[in-house]
Amino acid sequence: MRETERLSELAKRRGFFFQSSEAYGGVSGFYTFGPEGAEVKRNVEKQWRKWFSQREGHREIDAPTVMPEPVFEASGHLETFDDMIVVCPECEASHRADHLVEDNTDIDEAEAIANEKIGEIIEEEVIACPSCGTALAGQPVDDFNLMFGTQIGPGDSQQGYLRPETAQGIFVEFPRLKEYARNQLPFGITQIGRAYRNEISPRNSLVRTREFTQAELEHFIDPEKDQPDLEKVEDVELLLYPRENQGDGELIKATVREAVEQDTIADPWIAYYLGLAKQWYSRIGVNMERFRFRQHQEDELSHYSTDCWDAEGEVDGNWIELAGFSYRGCYDLSKHNEHSREDFTLFREYDEPEIVEEPQVNPDMGYLGPEYGERAGKIKQALEDLAENDPEAFDHEEVSIEVEGQELEIPVERTGFSVEQEEKHGEHILPHVMEPSFGVDRAVFTVLAHSLDQDEIDGEERDVLRLENEIAPTEIAVLPLMDKDGMPEKAREVARNLRESG
Amino acid sequence: MRETERLSELAKRRGFFFQSSEAYGGVSGFYTFGPEGAEVKRNVEKQWRKWFSQREGHREIDAPTVMPEPVFEASGHLETFDDMIVVCPECEASHRADHLVEDNTDIDEAEAIANEKIGEIIEEEVIACPSCGTALAGQPVDDFNLMFGTQIGPGDSQQGYLRPETAQGIFVEFPRLKEYARNQLPFGITQIGRAYRNEISPRNSLVRTREFTQAELEHFIDPEKDQPDLEKVEDVELLLYPRENQGDGELIKATVREAVEQDTIADPWIAYYLGLAKQWYSRIGVNMERFRFRQHQEDELSHYSTDCWDAEGEVDGNWIELAGFSYRGCYDLSKHNEHSREDFTLFREYDEPEIVEEPQVNPDMGYLGPEYGERAGKIKQALEDLAENDPEAFDHEEVSIEVEGQELEIPVERTGFSVEQEEKHGEHILPHVMEPSFGVDRAVFTVLAHSLDQDEIDGEERDVLRLENEIAPTEIAVLPLMDKDGMPEKAREVARNLRESG
Repeated sequence: MRETERLSELAKRRGFFFQSSEAYGGVSGFYTFGPEGAEVKRNVEKQWRKWFSQREGHREIDAPTVMPEPVFEASGHLETFDDMIVVCPECEASHRADHLVEDNTDIDEAEAIANEKIGEIIEEEVIACPSCGTALAGQPVDDFNLMFGTQIGPGDSQQGYLRPETAQGIFVEFPRLKEYARNQLPFGITQIGRAYRNEISPRNSLVRTREFTQAELEHFIDPEKDQPDLEKVEDVELLLYPRENQGDGELIKATVREAVEQDTIADPWIAYYLGLAKQWYSRIGVNMERFRFRQHQEDELSHYSTDCWDAEGEVDGNWIELAGFSYRGCYDLSKHNEHSREDFTLFREYDEPEIVEEPQVNPDMGYLGPEYGERAGKIKQALEDLAENDPEAFDHEEVSIEVEGQELEIPVERTGFSVEQEEKHGEHILPHVMEPSFGVDRAVFTVLAHSLDQDEIDGEERDVLRLENEIAPTEIAVLPLMDKDGMPEKAREVARNLRESG
Repeated sequence: MRETERLSELAKRRGFFFQSSEAYGGVSGFYTFGPEGAEVKRNVEKQWRKWFSQREGHREIDAPTVMPEPVFEASGHLETFDDMIVVCPECEASHRADHLVEDNTDIDEAEAIANEKIGEIIEEEVIACPSCGTALAGQPVDDFNLMFGTQIGPGDSQQGYLRPETAQGIFVEFPRLKEYARNQLPFGITQIGRAYRNEISPRNSLVRTREFTQAELEHFIDPEKDQPDLEKVEDVELLLYPRENQGDGELIKATVREAVEQDTIADPWIAYYLGLAKQWYSRIGVNMERFRFRQHQEDELSHYSTDCWDAEGEVDGNWIELAGFSYRGCYDLSKHNEHSREDFTLFREYDEPEIVEEPQVNPDMGYLGPEYGERAGKIKQALEDLAENDPEAFDHEEVSIEVEGQELEIPVERTGFSVEQEEKHGEHILPHVMEPSFGVDRAVFTVLAHSLDQDEIDGEERDVLRLENEIAPTEIAVLPLMDKDGMPEKAREVARNLRESG
């Protein structure tokens, strides 16, 4: 039996996780963590907080899951956060078109292919509806936005969305967060919380759900100044699957330091976080022989990302995306800076003030007025523009400008041209963002799958879980060895005392 | 300045909490906890978990926030989870009609008054739109459902709602949860998580928001057998405001034990949890001189509740509902038992098997057939019904039954009447539910408000917070006393070491 099935069966029976609302037939893509699973999940979150927030000196915030439309207009999610959908003409079931192609051909990352081309492949390969078997040839392949919408307030309501990533709750509050950081880069803000994606066809247990928990870190840096503390993780060994090797190339084994020096990982920030993540996944019990880092293909990158590596864990022969390490550049902050009324920049102070030359004009209107009449104002404007854009034009006796379609020659001495020197102490910049983004449910799923073991009781095999201490749901069990002589009562007393003393 | 304003100002400046998405003008009723506030909130949750889950031996689950419509059809939220809305004919702003009445008259709990009557009061008192001043007389007072709706999935989508309380995520999974509890009552399930109410007019900072965090405990009990361990909290002193005293009556001081014995609190389960809650709120820093328990008026009770007391904290002269202690009886489980396809009952085993008398008939068809012809079958049915409902009718020589409108006398010896004795080992029951339900954001708000203090720096007064150790956001601060001799570097090193060792 596949690990996924063995785990799902054990998880349901022992209270780790199960599909929600099954009393009403269930809804695809929603899972409830039972008492054991909720404890494991909390432990994973606690370890993440320790590893990526507390130890790194970052701060955690807690933002709402419902956010107003303008945020996602700015972030680009309204426009581009889509999957490809194809609807069966017979049974009206909806399917993810790229997944149908992956399932029915040798193509791997069909998400990166254009809709039209996917339609052609569906036709050529005679791909049929998995629900009813009807051929899907000729059905349109459309974009389906993955955000859950909702109306905020009554009559005079506002369109809102359940956030598709916790990150936007951080970006949109940057103007305030930078103040808490005393306007000093670098600083990091983390968040652990729910995110939502209205998947067309949720599948694979906890791996592709519609509601899930993310743990994200937005590390705001000055791209020209800030460097990660590579020393801390330089010896951590990584198993890397770079873009160009994917297909028939090999995986590369390298330490964090080697990966940076050999340029396997272009950005040292990404390398730093891969090192930290490797240590963390190993600690919580992911099997390092079933773990790797894969670089995104260029056409696979999110709309905000310039480079991205995924942490992947193997279950049942499939590589599951566990976390993404994305260099978002200044994409998000620049978008919010444009769309909103707040200032998303930071002032970068120069080490030493810079002397900047400012060319200026101060035209002699007592000359221009009588000479050119009504055109004098426009001539003044043209001279100012010219001084700013081409100060060298003033190196001659006369400058040539165009006003109302007519070329005019103005004596430089009448323009009051001069070059002032100014001291500039710094400039406003948009910080860049390095984003390690973790799926908490997927981490729980992979840890549990990799912890599955079997033992034998009375000649019968059964599945057991062997979990790391820090993750295990039960810390202490008080078990009376016999059901007599008041031992059960004594055991209950011991358990009660332990509980009360925390 | 009012405490609410002082706190809001300090909270924004120091990173406790602030209105979300202000860069886009903000959305009423959504708040973000900044680094300091998120830490306080996590600490409050941690203390709640310790106090109401771990120490009490209950288990915590983690269910989705989006749930399908049938759950809320069964729970009654679709039908009755409404507030009264009135819309201004001029500016189209929506208002909570009962709040307008409370703000403009001496009426206190206007929520309990019928819509029509509220409309009359608005007319009589000439209440105007707070936004534009237009008189609202004659505008309809309607029900507005407070659940946020959303569509789950594409084309073939299902209606879903953001849960209005975390409780339903527990009730709907009861068939599975009872198995984890080995089908033994009593047991308790807790959950800490987001809940959502699409308030008509959110107000008062963190007190009435549209997205908030609840900490709820559903304690499933056998109403005939299970009693709380009152001893544990019997000496805890409560300040009580029972239903009949509200208005001009006085508050009552009583220990938990006294309150039960004097019947001030009818249900010992409610009394038990008021005791526990009083201890807890005191621990986290709510000022006990600004804290009381108020019983709901009968017409104020939720649709599921048979008795309910609120914990209330005072801020700026207003009493804020901090938690509700509601006896939900078997309302929710019976509704889900009816509406769903699962079994929400538990088998209650008798201490000793009961001998039950089962009256039976075994009519002599060889007599009835020839005597009554086609009516014999109906006569048999009538005899069976009679034996079940009125076995004493068989104490005479003949029994009288009615078949097809005709009275017939049947000799008892021909009915084969007998009384069998059966051993019954138990019966299926619907557990009752005691629900302590806490608002986490309101707890944070009240603790912070009650912790506000002032000190003086250089002759200038400023607001400071004095928080309990267990709640404070900062555990350790490393502060170099001078900015020289390498002390800042040394301080950074100490801080780093502390962080790494957790």
